[in-house]
Amino acid sequence: MNPSRPSGRASDQLRTVTLERHYTRHAEGSVLVSFGDTRVLCTASIEDRAPAWLRGKGEGWVTAEYGMLPRATNTRTQREAARGGQGGRTMEIQRLIGRSLRACVNRQALGERVITLDCDVLQADGGTRTAAITGAYVALVDAVNLLMKRENLKRNPIVGAVAAVSVGIYKGVPVLDLDYAEDSDCDTDMNVVMNDGGGFIEVQGTAEGHAFRRGEMDTMLALAEQGIGELVAAQRAALAL
Amino acid sequence: MNPSRPSGRASDQLRTVTLERHYTRHAEGSVLVSFGDTRVLCTASIEDRAPAWLRGKGEGWVTAEYGMLPRATNTRTQREAARGGQGGRTMEIQRLIGRSLRACVNRQALGERVITLDCDVLQADGGTRTAAITGAYVALVDAVNLLMKRENLKRNPIVGAVAAVSVGIYKGVPVLDLDYAEDSDCDTDMNVVMNDGGGFIEVQGTAEGHAFRRGEMDTMLALAEQGIGELVAAQRAALAL
Amino acid sequence: MNPSRPSGRASDQLRTVTLERHYTRHAEGSVLVSFGDTRVLCTASIEDRAPAWLRGKGEGWVTAEYGMLPRATNTRTQREAARGGQGGRTMEIQRLIGRSLRACVNRQALGERVITLDCDVLQADGGTRTAAITGAYVALVDAVNLLMKRENLKRNPIVGAVAAVSVGIYKGVPVLDLDYAEDSDCDTDMNVVMNDGGGFIEVQGTAEGHAFRRGEMDTMLALAEQGIGELVAAQRAALAL
Amino acid sequence: MNPSRPSGRASDQLRTVTLERHYTRHAEGSVLVSFGDTRVLCTASIEDRAPAWLRGKGEGWVTAEYGMLPRATNTRTQREAARGGQGGRTMEIQRLIGRSLRACVNRQALGERVITLDCDVLQADGGTRTAAITGAYVALVDAVNLLMKRENLKRNPIVGAVAAVSVGIYKGVPVLDLDYAEDSDCDTDMNVVMNDGGGFIEVQGTAEGHAFRRGEMDTMLALAEQGIGELVAAQRAALAL
Amino acid sequence: MNPSRPSGRASDQLRTVTLERHYTRHAEGSVLVSFGDTRVLCTASIEDRAPAWLRGKGEGWVTAEYGMLPRATNTRTQREAARGGQGGRTMEIQRLIGRSLRACVNRQALGERVITLDCDVLQADGGTRTAAITGAYVALVDAVNLLMKRENLKRNPIVGAVAAVSVGIYKGVPVLDLDYAEDSDCDTDMNVVMNDGGGFIEVQGTAEGHAFRRGEMDTMLALAEQGIGELVAAQRAALAL
Amino acid sequence: MNPSRPSGRASDQLRTVTLERHYTRHAEGSVLVSFGDTRVLCTASIEDRAPAWLRGKGEGWVTAEYGMLPRATNTRTQREAARGGQGGRTMEIQRLIGRSLRACVNRQALGERVITLDCDVLQADGGTRTAAITGAYVALVDAVNLLMKRENLKRNPIVGAVAAVSVGIYKGVPVLDLDYAEDSDCDTDMNVVMNDGGGFIEVQGTAEGHAFRRGEMDTMLALAEQGIGELVAAQRAALAL
Repeated sequence: MNPSRPSGRASDQLRTVTLERHYTRHAEGSVLVSFGDTRVLCTASIEDRAPAWLRGKGEGWVTAEYGMLPRATNTRTQREAARGGQGGRTMEIQRLIGRSLRACVNRQALGERVITLDCDVLQADGGTRTAAITGAYVALVDAVNLLMKRENLKRNPIVGAVAAVSVGIYKGVPVLDLDYAEDSDCDTDMNVVMNDGGGFIEVQGTAEGHAFRRGEMDTMLALAEQGIGELVAAQRAALAL
Repeated sequence: MNPSRPSGRASDQLRTVTLERHYTRHAEGSVLVSFGDTRVLCTASIEDRAPAWLRGKGEGWVTAEYGMLPRATNTRTQREAARGGQGGRTMEIQRLIGRSLRACVNRQALGERVITLDCDVLQADGGTRTAAITGAYVALVDAVNLLMKRENLKRNPIVGAVAAVSVGIYKGVPVLDLDYAEDSDCDTDMNVVMNDGGGFIEVQGTAEGHAFRRGEMDTMLALAEQGIGELVAAQRAALAL
Repeated sequence: MNPSRPSGRASDQLRTVTLERHYTRHAEGSVLVSFGDTRVLCTASIEDRAPAWLRGKGEGWVTAEYGMLPRATNTRTQREAARGGQGGRTMEIQRLIGRSLRACVNRQALGERVITLDCDVLQADGGTRTAAITGAYVALVDAVNLLMKRENLKRNPIVGAVAAVSVGIYKGVPVLDLDYAEDSDCDTDMNVVMNDGGGFIEVQGTAEGHAFRRGEMDTMLALAEQGIGELVAAQRAALAL
Repeated sequence: MNPSRPSGRASDQLRTVTLERHYTRHAEGSVLVSFGDTRVLCTASIEDRAPAWLRGKGEGWVTAEYGMLPRATNTRTQREAARGGQGGRTMEIQRLIGRSLRACVNRQALGERVITLDCDVLQADGGTRTAAITGAYVALVDAVNLLMKRENLKRNPIVGAVAAVSVGIYKGVPVLDLDYAEDSDCDTDMNVVMNDGGGFIEVQGTAEGHAFRRGEMDTMLALAEQGIGELVAAQRAALAL
Repeated sequence: MNPSRPSGRASDQLRTVTLERHYTRHAEGSVLVSFGDTRVLCTASIEDRAPAWLRGKGEGWVTAEYGMLPRATNTRTQREAARGGQGGRTMEIQRLIGRSLRACVNRQALGERVITLDCDVLQADGGTRTAAITGAYVALVDAVNLLMKRENLKRNPIVGAVAAVSVGIYKGVPVLDLDYAEDSDCDTDMNVVMNDGGGFIEVQGTAEGHAFRRGEMDTMLALAEQGIGELVAAQRAALAL
Repeated sequence: MNPSRPSGRASDQLRTVTLERHYTRHAEGSVLVSFGDTRVLCTASIEDRAPAWLRGKGEGWVTAEYGMLPRATNTRTQREAARGGQGGRTMEIQRLIGRSLRACVNRQALGERVITLDCDVLQADGGTRTAAITGAYVALVDAVNLLMKRENLKRNPIVGAVAAVSVGIYKGVPVLDLDYAEDSDCDTDMNVVMNDGGGFIEVQGTAEGHAFRRGEMDTMLALAEQGIGELVAAQRAALAL
């Protein structure tokens, strides 16, 4: 029991991670991912049509959309559809998810198709975007496997695994996988996306309070590398079932 | 086994109904309702503030919003937030849910508060609006019970139970609780909302194919009365847990 | 003189109904319908092009749009175009009008064409949607007759007549064709759309106050059947001129 | 019979002008104005509240909104409410109507009120904005007279009359009050708004084809002065009824 | 030094006019125009594609868009993109700029191309639309010259010069080229667009205070003719560099 | 001359940076910043009113908006105001600028005021967001200095300097301050925001091609630290004039 974190977790300890495949039945891939109390439904939908700007080029596209149910949060958030459009935070997150997942796809091997990853937060407790990326990867693999079987693709368009985690500095201490209590009160928050080869796909660090130093950054990156290793293992385990 | 319905159900047979309370943790009421493969997450959120047009009148309001996750459906539906607003079907449904639930609330007893019922379809297989009404009632009761305890209300603002079911004429035969296979191929589709005293709150019948006769209407209404009786019993059972 | 209704009408008495054809000159059909002080301009516009989703299928479409001039109402209502879009009530009504009129059209016989019925309320006194349906039918017939003459169609795409009326329970008494004074103070309001063969196309009943009983519903439906019979006669008389 | 104009009118001849007061019953002023086949319903609505930016200054405001029913035109025009907002042409016209009518109102004498002039085109045949201004003036006077009676105002806020007409150069000849056939095929189109004292309130001339010369402008302005004299007389006659 | 104008200018004196070509490097034409402290960046962009409604007709189109940086004005104006659309004033101005520039282009000689003139106000001090038209003409000529060289056009699509200036009645005196101090306090404001042959393309005069008389109009038009003569000379001089 | 970069710059060489203060005259701070051919106009506007959610808390806010003139880019980009709203990229950038500048402001010392930083790209050649942050800082300081003088503030709300630069891996080599030719063809692109004390405020790195390794990241961060040192010096020099 670590007194310095509200949850009592050790500084380098992830929350309990679960990846429940086939959570809904219509989508080609459908995964309910939980990082502790954060629960995100990730579906992968295949459309056999390239977007207009790629037509005739023989390659596909992977994109993402993100949403939050109005009462996924502690107090009710206005529904974006009722407000007339997606806000800046939503757009930023769904662009991040899309870029991250494209990093593990060979778009030539995918052919003229679009895969849309819908990540909808059913319950939020910090880290929704990193949970979304981690779960969307599993949904993507399920969808691509179905496609390969159905269409008899020659090559697997998936060229690696992708997972994401947040790290930050909470009450002066670098910690892994911030929950909402930490996230809303930390000095620095950094989202890290990596592949299973240890390469970085995205690093987005923001000083919420005081600016962070190179040494702190190095510690946070090391925590992220460790956490992502565990998440990739959890993805593999889920896909092996 | 009834050969005339795709599911083999008898004409007067509901799908399996489940009402899972406390499905998410932030909302004052949170229920996952299933009518067979149709699954809707209904949350009730209390705000201690009357809407502008009721301020100072000493009474409250109950309203509803409805949404469908993009891949709740067989093929992906565009996200309304991305399209820039709620469509006509969504508005029609959420207005229906709001009116239905207001019918069982004493708004003076509620006091200057707003309860918002968010009904989000995780998986669709026909009857999402009737499942939403039936589940939202349970979420509403949970929220009001919490409120009564917390605020020491003198009177219970809930003055009855409300449930809803669809009936229709499928291949010439009046049937109860249409699933998607029936709904997309029926002659008449009627949504009925009733209270636990056997009174009608809403009746919305539409001839999709040939116009329906008074006799057919009478049979459909009788099926609805029976089905709603079973749904009210299921609500009571769930609330008794 | 009936003291129980503000207008003094008998319970089963329609307001004065007029159907003025050729009210404006550009539209293929143009009818000013009055139900007492409610006045709706209904125009039918033919476009020789199926909507995208019907192209190449050899069949047509009938759709409706509804609007209310800002000062059709007792106090000025904000213009929907200025507010940036159509509200929920407008969408609900125009979807109802469109469904109702499609029920009397053979879309194969129409061929790859769209007929748009624009129903714009010049003056409102309750029952605008039922007046709109009743008037739009006459505009539709005028437009189709013009089309048959112009295009030498083999079959008449109109397969019956459609009319609509509201019924309700006002101060405990079932009444026909509610005006605004009744509509804003009634217990139950039901809009009924029927064809000239006595079949039901739509039934939309809402308990505004206490829930209504089967017996009340039966009385209301009987009033509606009678009223629609008179409206269909008025349509025939107008078309015979 | 003048062979040079499609209508056979003389160069300096207005179309038949009618001003039908009390056309609808809810608005404080309601006038159906016709310039030949152009018919515009003008209503004046009084709100006893200054706009936010004038509050506490003891003066009022006069504003206008313009709309066109979808089938007022020869082919159907998409409804602006359905398109999601008012287009540039609509905004330009309603700003012109508002400025023109404010020119005949003493806003101090009006007090903290807003009068909104809604001008909705039921049928279009050229000159809708000039007909709207001419008709809206009569509706405004009716509304102000009602207000003066009701509120016992000391001074009449109306300080003159305002009317408008179009002039143009059609097939080389300056003409008064262009109809649609002329408007869509003219070299120059000029809308002129004047008061009853012969002063100019707005002049908006546009060369559609070749640029116009000072001499042509002088002739057009003289035609406009004559036409507006006749329109002001028609307004007086209508108000005297 | 003229005491009657805030700037001390003579009644018939333009502000200092500069036309800086090639102000930015990507556009086919790019001009920073200054009328005193009013500075507008005008770019001309060529697209080798007719708009949909002109396709296959062998002719092109010239259009304009207008914008104002949020702090071009004395107090910050909300960004139109953030507000969700262009306002009425913006639409009115960009429609005027587009019409004015089309008046000097032979659209057949242009071929199936669109030239878009973007006029963005960097700093506003009255007369932004007249500066925009005057500057956009120079940007248009630069773009067309580039096009003629690049595409080896046979005929020059530019058939004349176009410039614009405001005139008005300030403290009872007709003056040329109103700055903001005059514009916000004048009785009449008139924008005049002319070609280099002395023909009028647009005249838009508005009485802000008292209505203006024919004699005043004649004086204003004479001032405008003189001012535009000087502006056309400035355009020629800039293009000769 | 370095053959490996299109511009011939050394790997650790910034483009020519200029900061032109008082570029426009209305804003409290107005700076034209150039990073080579990238030119961004940054204005700071002070409003003496906290946003609604901070009212009565005695502290202020700093926010940013970002825009791009339609022809700032190589081919014309559609105007966001005409498209009906700001896109995801714009929102992402303006949120970044706002967060970055808030990191150098003591919001208590600012008092109940809002400072809006408008960053409008006149010409784009890569690195518009880093140029915007670097220039907006200078505009912010000018505005705050004016405010301190005008309002006699006791404490300076500016608590440090903030500047930003991009780094990336271009053809395998880590380079500083990517221009458009590099940006559109690089493997990794990282935007770094730092304060003058060497602390990190934001780090946003994206692998466009292959994932980047820790070693590469370290080199990029070192380049950024050096570049930002030079930018802070340029800011100081500009503010000393």
